[in-house]
Amino acid sequence: MLPLAQCISVKAQPPSLRDNTADLDRLKKALLDKLAGRMPVVPLSRLSIIAGEFRRAKFNGTAVVNNLPTGPEIVDFLTEAPVYLPGMALDLGTTHLEANLVDLISGRLLASADRENSQIKYGADILSRIHFAAKSDGLEKMHREIVHCINLLGRDLAEQIHVQTSDIRALSVSGNTTMAHFFLKLDPYWLCREPYIPLANAPDPCKASDLGLEFHPGAPVWVLPSVGSYFGGDLISGILASGMDEQEKTCMLIDVGTNAEVILGNRDWLIACAGAAGPALEGGVARMGMRAGPGAIEHVEIDPQTRKVHYQTIGNQPPEGICGSGIIDLVAGLYLAQVIDMRGKFRHGSAPEQLVREGDEYAFVVAPSEESAKGKPVVLSQVDLDALMRSKAAMYAILTTLTNQVGVGFDQLQRIYVAGAFGQHINPRQAVILGMLPDLSPDIYEPVGNSSLAGAKQILLDQNARSRCLRLVKKITYMELNVNQEFMIRFSGSRFIPHTDHSLFPSVPFFGET
Amino acid sequence: MLPLAQCISVKAQPPSLRDNTADLDRLKKALLDKLAGRMPVVPLSRLSIIAGEFRRAKFNGTAVVNNLPTGPEIVDFLTEAPVYLPGMALDLGTTHLEANLVDLISGRLLASADRENSQIKYGADILSRIHFAAKSDGLEKMHREIVHCINLLGRDLAEQIHVQTSDIRALSVSGNTTMAHFFLKLDPYWLCREPYIPLANAPDPCKASDLGLEFHPGAPVWVLPSVGSYFGGDLISGILASGMDEQEKTCMLIDVGTNAEVILGNRDWLIACAGAAGPALEGGVARMGMRAGPGAIEHVEIDPQTRKVHYQTIGNQPPEGICGSGIIDLVAGLYLAQVIDMRGKFRHGSAPEQLVREGDEYAFVVAPSEESAKGKPVVLSQVDLDALMRSKAAMYAILTTLTNQVGVGFDQLQRIYVAGAFGQHINPRQAVILGMLPDLSPDIYEPVGNSSLAGAKQILLDQNARSRCLRLVKKITYMELNVNQEFMIRFSGSRFIPHTDHSLFPSVPFFGET
Repeated sequence: MLPLAQCISVKAQPPSLRDNTADLDRLKKALLDKLAGRMPVVPLSRLSIIAGEFRRAKFNGTAVVNNLPTGPEIVDFLTEAPVYLPGMALDLGTTHLEANLVDLISGRLLASADRENSQIKYGADILSRIHFAAKSDGLEKMHREIVHCINLLGRDLAEQIHVQTSDIRALSVSGNTTMAHFFLKLDPYWLCREPYIPLANAPDPCKASDLGLEFHPGAPVWVLPSVGSYFGGDLISGILASGMDEQEKTCMLIDVGTNAEVILGNRDWLIACAGAAGPALEGGVARMGMRAGPGAIEHVEIDPQTRKVHYQTIGNQPPEGICGSGIIDLVAGLYLAQVIDMRGKFRHGSAPEQLVREGDEYAFVVAPSEESAKGKPVVLSQVDLDALMRSKAAMYAILTTLTNQVGVGFDQLQRIYVAGAFGQHINPRQAVILGMLPDLSPDIYEPVGNSSLAGAKQILLDQNARSRCLRLVKKITYMELNVNQEFMIRFSGSRFIPHTDHSLFPSVPFFGET
Repeated sequence: MLPLAQCISVKAQPPSLRDNTADLDRLKKALLDKLAGRMPVVPLSRLSIIAGEFRRAKFNGTAVVNNLPTGPEIVDFLTEAPVYLPGMALDLGTTHLEANLVDLISGRLLASADRENSQIKYGADILSRIHFAAKSDGLEKMHREIVHCINLLGRDLAEQIHVQTSDIRALSVSGNTTMAHFFLKLDPYWLCREPYIPLANAPDPCKASDLGLEFHPGAPVWVLPSVGSYFGGDLISGILASGMDEQEKTCMLIDVGTNAEVILGNRDWLIACAGAAGPALEGGVARMGMRAGPGAIEHVEIDPQTRKVHYQTIGNQPPEGICGSGIIDLVAGLYLAQVIDMRGKFRHGSAPEQLVREGDEYAFVVAPSEESAKGKPVVLSQVDLDALMRSKAAMYAILTTLTNQVGVGFDQLQRIYVAGAFGQHINPRQAVILGMLPDLSPDIYEPVGNSSLAGAKQILLDQNARSRCLRLVKKITYMELNVNQEFMIRFSGSRFIPHTDHSLFPSVPFFGET
């Protein structure tokens, strides 16, 4: 397994006139056997401390060793063997940070925490943050903000198990390419400019102290490699977590965050692409949209006859908004109840009690004000609906463009992993009704949760995962959609429910022209 | 050869939509072939700069790559191929620093400079500096002082070739174990306490910027490894420079600095020891003693009949003092002229014109005040003479103890290398008369100059020398003299000129009991 940082117990003979090996060389020698003969190095900044502690401990104790691509590195020496060695796995999202504190010795989960990405004050989306970073000290501010945010998250985690942030001994970071750039203070300027080239896809590991993190100064920071500007380490993490890169049969992984990112492949080949398909499904874009959390409407049913709405919120709280899975349920229900037509437009008079006018447009009341948390009704506006239509069209267009590229039919897929909060809560059947996901048996779809975080956890715990992901990125063919004509054509065809070509969705009712 | 830092020219294709490799990964890929397939790393602190320059240079230019034990490391990217890449080789002495600026591309010497070790203000000798370092911020002061001194030396060198200190791209440092500790800010406390254990003998390379050096921030600092508290990297450097570790026949290397350090061996084995034998031969201990430099009396002849003194100064300047070789000439001459007896004591009435009383003791006037630079006569006092007698006795005792340890006779030695300013200026025959060096043909003795600096230069220029010296330190058996009974007995027997046992020095006249 070989975690990113590990404890190795050391029992060395004390020096004598007959054995005058220097303290540090004595320690290295004692470790050599336990490191499969790979000579460890000691960074100058830790040398004095380690040699001093080794001597104070009378040459018996526990060395903390980082397992880096360049070889093992001793970063600490402890008199007492620690009960656990906390490492942090981080999903560094554009809107949210989600982290696990993991024991590097046992692999056990010690604590979990999440925080809003406080960079949001400099720009809600990636693009506006890239522009902000181009201002004089914009990059510096952006970098400091995210480091501060991670420090707070580290503190949240450490407090849960009654240790200090500085007790965190390793960090693995899985994020999109832009977030990785901000985190490492790399200029993101070229990320959003043709031909969309990152400064670095696979940065070498650095130290927590290099970045201003308040973790243990010897803690290694391992950032998951990315494949391109629009295909980041979070996706590589997803591939790791799903294991699709080791399977014989072809699988697909769909991750919907701010972007929709899709990977298709097996142990022999992997092809990937990404496109802007997500916003409508995340908090912040749809007016009533919110992240999956307490008070979010996550499931909706509409009676096709009465058009009565039944909804369910997370934690059974009074509703505050709708999360991604709720929106999909809702729109699928509205389609089946014929409240919206195949173009995704509200049909005047179809639900007199719920359809209300807002200026020139209609909006559908999901929860009236008397039921809601904030005394305002939770509604889906035509604007929200249009955004969802674009998102779902983009998603299907991405999936078909990608499979078509390699000549694999949807029916040849062994499994479709659906990652993220989106994957965990949606009902694939509803997404099929919308024409967002292909018309396959629901059991083909497998939610894999926050696979970005799951992959980061593997990176923290397993040398094999670390080398696997460096091999993996070299194997991936990345398809750029920004300039793909086929995608644009497929996108247009997908802007209907379920699709202009009904034969692609035989299981979905078709209501004819309206 | 592979220098510690090198230039590698790079011609890469610019990125395109079909080839969206990230900038840094593109650079690494372009270098891979030229690095024998070893994947280079990039330290985070240099990542942005390198990627930015690579892009600005339109992906064509010169990478500066450090060759470290853990593998190659890219630290810079230059649009124009530089004419030379300056590296500094440093002999980090207790009293003096001597440095060469060397072109890492051609191996050519670019400039030379030397400076007094300004740590002297905290203590003239090693021991008093170790004590000073034990005070509250003593180590910090000592460290900063030596770094400042090296910065000034770097500036001296850079000015000679009209570049900046920050243009120096690598540093190799050869010094005794204590100086290496001060340089790296390692606590020297245990160096002078039984069983005399260094904190580290073979510290891993670090960066100039880690130490506060004003060199290029990416410049690697390679400190020559030591073998023990009293056997430092300067001696390892000497072995490298002499090449004795690669020869079939057994040779000996003698280096007299503040300590006398001796190595015996061949390509199969090496044994070494060190002892306090030098002080009498260095400036600062003998009252009139001075370092070999302008105004130092370096050669002395005494007419055995008239006892008239002829001396020669370095640079033919009026005499200011006597350097090591002058003292040896002088005392050998005084013995042959029977002005001193075999115990090294002035013989009353033996030279009425030159022997003057100073309190209870005699002193011998080498240059009268009217000839001297400072209006005071240059004299050798009985105290100075006693110090020399101890030094020469210690030296011979070291040599015999060491050869006896491995059962090698002096007559089996192929060559005796004599290092340091001492080696360059002494006449071996005079040292033989004193019984300081064994009674062998003078052509066995070969002065090798500042071998500490010569070895550091090899380290700078040649990967082979770097790996050779790491192998070499493992091969050396170090004999501790501080607790060696045999040495103490041999030391007593050597406190006569040439020796209590005349048969050991058949070529030296013996004047009988006095």
